Amino acid sequence: MRWDEIGGEACSVARTVSVIGARWTLLILRDCFLGVRRFDDFQTRIGVTRPILADRLKKLVAEGILAKCADEERPLRYEDRLTAAGRALHPVIMAIVHWGDTHRVTRKGRPLLHTHKTCGHDFDPVMVCSHCAAPLSARAVTVRAGPGATPSMSTDQDQA
Amino acid sequence: MRWDEIGGEACSVARTVSVIGARWTLLILRDCFLGVRRFDDFQTRIGVTRPILADRLKKLVAEGILAKCADEERPLRYEDRLTAAGRALHPVIMAIVHWGDTHRVTRKGRPLLHTHKTCGHDFDPVMVCSHCAAPLSARAVTVRAGPGATPSMSTDQDQA
Repeated sequence: MRWDEIGGEACSVARTVSVIGARWTLLILRDCFLGVRRFDDFQTRIGVTRPILADRLKKLVAEGILAKCADEERPLRYEDRLTAAGRALHPVIMAIVHWGDTHRVTRKGRPLLHTHKTCGHDFDPVMVCSHCAAPLSARAVTVRAGPGATPSMSTDQDQA
Repeated sequence: MRWDEIGGEACSVARTVSVIGARWTLLILRDCFLGVRRFDDFQTRIGVTRPILADRLKKLVAEGILAKCADEERPLRYEDRLTAAGRALHPVIMAIVHWGDTHRVTRKGRPLLHTHKTCGHDFDPVMVCSHCAAPLSARAVTVRAGPGATPSMSTDQDQA
């Protein structure tokens, strides 16, 4: 398989990685969730070259993750905003943040603190089961083929 | 910034992406959580070239995500198993799976179904607040600088 073919795989991980897995794209999405919308702001914050940034933003628009909208303050210019499908990537970014906050933090502490407006407290993101609401762990999850499986996906086994 | 410098950034997303963001690495981690441990099995399932696979596995071992262990059935050979830090990436993989299951599913349906052994039901992974246990959304989260922030991280704003 070539890298640019993974979007055609039946696997949901491969399909998602074909959207978010290019170099720099996860850093762009991080900034989108921090409210960044303008090309120059992405460029200054991430320090990626302009052609690469333009390519990644264009792909995210083509994938329906970002939408080009008129800039509210400068109507002749455009900005890139998360769509509903883009905002649905929030758990991916939060899970990535949390792993870094836990496993790659320096002695100084976390670079950013997250507050949940609903309850007013700083929080960690926790992945739970939609049925019983208990926190999930890899060892408590089993996987079996679903209706969209292909014959090569032999996965009837416990995780990890 | 060069791509190979992102692990030195203060940002937890950048630090995590420096571990998981190389091409193919997320597909390797997906397979680790499905119980794959042997080089040939990764290679057959993912279809990546052997030198690239060897490079990615070596890097995951160096990062403490995988550990080389003696193969239980073939003691002279080694297999790669998730460490505790590697298993802690489970929410990242589950969030990626779930986005694909929701936003890139075909008419046939999901390729894999996940069962929570604790409650015995098929489930979706849900990201909740560690304080109030309510499901998180990007719009209900605010971010501020923490003790490990650098001056360039100006982020006192709502998300998305």
